[in-house]
Order: sequence, then structure tokens, then C-alpha cells
Amino acid sequence: MTLIKVLIVYAHESPASFNAAAKDAAVAALTAQGCTVEVSDLYAMKFKAAATTEDITGGVKDAENFCYAKEIKLASEEGRLADDIKKEQEKLKEADLVIFQFPMYWSSVPAIMKGWMDRVLGFAYAQEKRYSEGIFKDKKAMLSFTTDCPESVYSDTGINGDINVTLWPLQNGILNYCGFQVFAPQIFWDPATGSPESRSSMLEGWRRRLQNLCVEASVYFAPLDYFDKEKGFLLKPEVKEKYASKECGLTVGIHMGKPLPANSQTKAGV
Amino acid sequence: MTLIKVLIVYAHESPASFNAAAKDAAVAALTAQGCTVEVSDLYAMKFKAAATTEDITGGVKDAENFCYAKEIKLASEEGRLADDIKKEQEKLKEADLVIFQFPMYWSSVPAIMKGWMDRVLGFAYAQEKRYSEGIFKDKKAMLSFTTDCPESVYSDTGINGDINVTLWPLQNGILNYCGFQVFAPQIFWDPATGSPESRSSMLEGWRRRLQNLCVEASVYFAPLDYFDKEKGFLLKPEVKEKYASKECGLTVGIHMGKPLPANSQTKAGV
Repeated sequence: MTLIKVLIVYAHESPASFNAAAKDAAVAALTAQGCTVEVSDLYAMKFKAAATTEDITGGVKDAENFCYAKEIKLASEEGRLADDIKKEQEKLKEADLVIFQFPMYWSSVPAIMKGWMDRVLGFAYAQEKRYSEGIFKDKKAMLSFTTDCPESVYSDTGINGDINVTLWPLQNGILNYCGFQVFAPQIFWDPATGSPESRSSMLEGWRRRLQNLCVEASVYFAPLDYFDKEKGFLLKPEVKEKYASKECGLTVGIHMGKPLPANSQTKAGV
Repeated sequence: MTLIKVLIVYAHESPASFNAAAKDAAVAALTAQGCTVEVSDLYAMKFKAAATTEDITGGVKDAENFCYAKEIKLASEEGRLADDIKKEQEKLKEADLVIFQFPMYWSSVPAIMKGWMDRVLGFAYAQEKRYSEGIFKDKKAMLSFTTDCPESVYSDTGINGDINVTLWPLQNGILNYCGFQVFAPQIFWDPATGSPESRSSMLEGWRRRLQNLCVEASVYFAPLDYFDKEKGFLLKPEVKEKYASKECGLTVGIHMGKPLPANSQTKAGV
């Protein structure tokens, strides 16, 4: 088992929720494998969501032209981040795997979890060290979430559109950007309207998956060296040529005007 | 001029920021046209971002199995929402156009703005009244935001991937879902690293656009009646057939396994 330390960033108000059950199942399954599991229960912690000047101690560098990304980076280098951010960053530093457990709100994470991402990951936002060279390139990350609609609704002919598109900003724009190797998401389709049996069966599937997570491949993203830094970070001509004859684009976002590779955000290795 | 009342939901800490200038330019340009403009300055208001049980007054219906979407809907019908939500909903009710002005954080809106969406729009989340039949179908909405990278980076061969994909969850999953007619976004590409002249020129372009906004067409989304409610909200067979011979899919999310229609989220009427 290579995943020794796990951080679960968890956002649900109710201990009776399916999300709580999914979190508890993960804690139990991972602990049974010998992992150390830490849970950041954002609602219980009353985690501050908004990125503000208060996140920097000892005064901000440029109050008038306050730019969060710049200030947080500098404050991070100088050890001047607010205590709640520091604490989460310590947990993150230790973790081999980070699981985000949440109910999907408006096609994304709840605001309290977006706040965790904005504030705790803020220092990882760097054009010089990103994607396959991102600072968390030795870590894994994974989204585990519930929807309130069935899978069909999130297909490429369904009313909400392809779930792979919806996940791109989260999985590529945040997790892959930071360097995380991204495990395929664990999606619990509409547990609220299912039977108790279907919910149990979803949790059982989750437990089984967690038992073998360490051997799973991760979702495919284009590596940093595919892009030409001097030319607006576009695909290098030789890469474009290599993929020119292929039927599909590289990923959902880097689609090259071709059909999207099927399930590029929901299956490993696509 | 059909856009009489405008609500600007604004999220930036600093009055010296480019986002503040873009917000001020919009207030001035729209006021000059005779519009009434209301600004919700989320940081100045210290807007609460997290969706919690405190958003419902008079006690929640099911504390043990707390489900935000259900509780907020019921509380809305019964007039039991927290005062800050009620106040924003009043502004929203009056508005013909809502402009969201923000710096892009991690491929999305800052957490404080996601909180506004989670909490204020919560009551609009309804499977029975959504998309082209959504409750705000007589209103327009628009994203106006800054990036910290040039346009090439967000292209379909750029390192961040096609901006149209990144915008889909916000424009379709939130704005279109609620019924808003969505104006093409106003994207300010990397104003921070440009010259003062380039920033002035961006603002001038924004002012010009605002002068003719009322005659702009909106971004194209598939109407509700394209989908079969009885069959998992998938495209109706006759719609699939109609589009089968076309080169591209309908939209970014509803792509039918074909190339995405170019700029479907950034240009009107695509």
C-alpha cells in the first residue's frame, strides 16, 4: 500500500447524510488497510470560505491593489498565513491522497469547499510550477460526490450535458493544475431518491474500490512539456502533428476541435 | 432600452482593482442609459458564503437529514429565509439583468460568489422548472471577469484548455439552469500584466459594449422541450435525428460525441 496518509476534505451539514456515510466508509476502509486518515469536516470547523486580507497576518504588502494570489504566495513563503490555512496546509503536506467528499451544488463544489480550495491551495497557484510539474505531483487526489439526478441527465445527450465537461474545471483547473495525479471520481448518482438497498450497494461499491485504490491508474492529462512556453502555452507543433490523425482530442479541454475522448474525466487512463 | 434594472454582483477586495474599475464603468455606462443599477459588493457586505442551517429561520424541517436544497425551497415558500438571502432575492426579483463581476479563481468564481449562488439562487433549483422554463426566463445574466493569463492559454490547444469548457458549468449549470438568457461573457484577459493603455482600452471596449447590450443576442442553449422527461431527460429521437448530419454537437455539454460548436459559450447565438 503506497497511500499511507489520507486527508478527506468533507463538506456536508448533516451526520445522517449519504455524504457522511461515504466519508465514514472511506475512513473505515482506509484505516483497515493501515492508512492514517485525517478528516477536515468543513462545516463542523466552521471553515471560513471567503478569501480575504485577514488570511495574511502582519499586514498585506499592497492593501490598495490587493491581489489575493500574490499576497498569499508571499505570505506563504514568509510564514504569515492565518492559522486555519496553515493547519490545513500541514495536513495537505502530510497527505499522499486527498479525497474531496461533497454533494454537488450548482455543477461544482459547495462554497465552503471552494473556499478551502481558494485559501488552502492558493499558494500552489504558480505559472512556473503547474500541471505535471505542479507542487503536489507526488500526491493523488479524487472527487467523491453525490448528485441529485440520475446518470442519463449528465450524458452527452442529456439535459445537463456530459459530466466530463462539468468536471473539467475541478479536475483539470484545480487538481491537475496543482500537480495532483487525479483518480477517476467516485460519483454517487442520486442516492437521495434511491432505495435503502441501492444506497447500501453504492457504499459497498465504494468500500470495494477503496480496497484497491492504490493500484488504480489516474485520469489522463496532457503533460506540461507538450506546451510551448514561448508561444502562449499552446501545444507544440510536433504534438499537434502526433495527434492530428487521431479521431479524438487529447482531453475535454484540449480537444483540438475534434470529438472529446469518451469519459476522459471519469475513467482512468483515457 | 429594455434593460431597466441591473444588479451587479461584485466580488473583489480592493477598490483599486481592475474588477472595481470594470464594475464602476458598468455602473456609469448603464446609469447614463437610464438604467437603475444596484451593486451587491460581496466583500464589503461580508457576505456569508457557506450554506448552513442558519439560512433558515424558525427551525429546519429535518435537522437530522438536513438537505440544503429541500430546506431552502420550503423556507422560501414560507418566507423563512435569513434576512441577507431575502435582501439579495429582492434585488434579483427586480433585476432585468444580473452581471457577475469577479476575478477568476481556480477556473470558477471566488468562494464568496459561489456562496451567493448557492444561497440566493438555492430556491431556483427545481427539476420541474428549469432551463428554458426556469424561473428567471425573463431575465438576462452575464459573467464579466478577469483572468491572470492570456487568451491562448485558454484555447482548445492551450494548456488550460478551451475557455468554453471551463465556462459551461457556470453558464449552463447555473445561469441557464435558472432560466436566465445568458449574454456572452465579458472576458478581460490578464489585465494585471498589461500596460495602463491596454487596461484603459479594455474598459473602453466594455463601456462600448454596454451601450448596445440590449440588442445583443444571447448564448445558445438547447431548449427544455428537446428532452424527453420520461426517458431520463435525454434528447428526443427527432432532435437527435435533426442534428445527426450536422458537423458539431448542440453545445459544449450536449456534444453528441461530435466536435464542440466553436465558441458556443463565448459568442452569442452559436
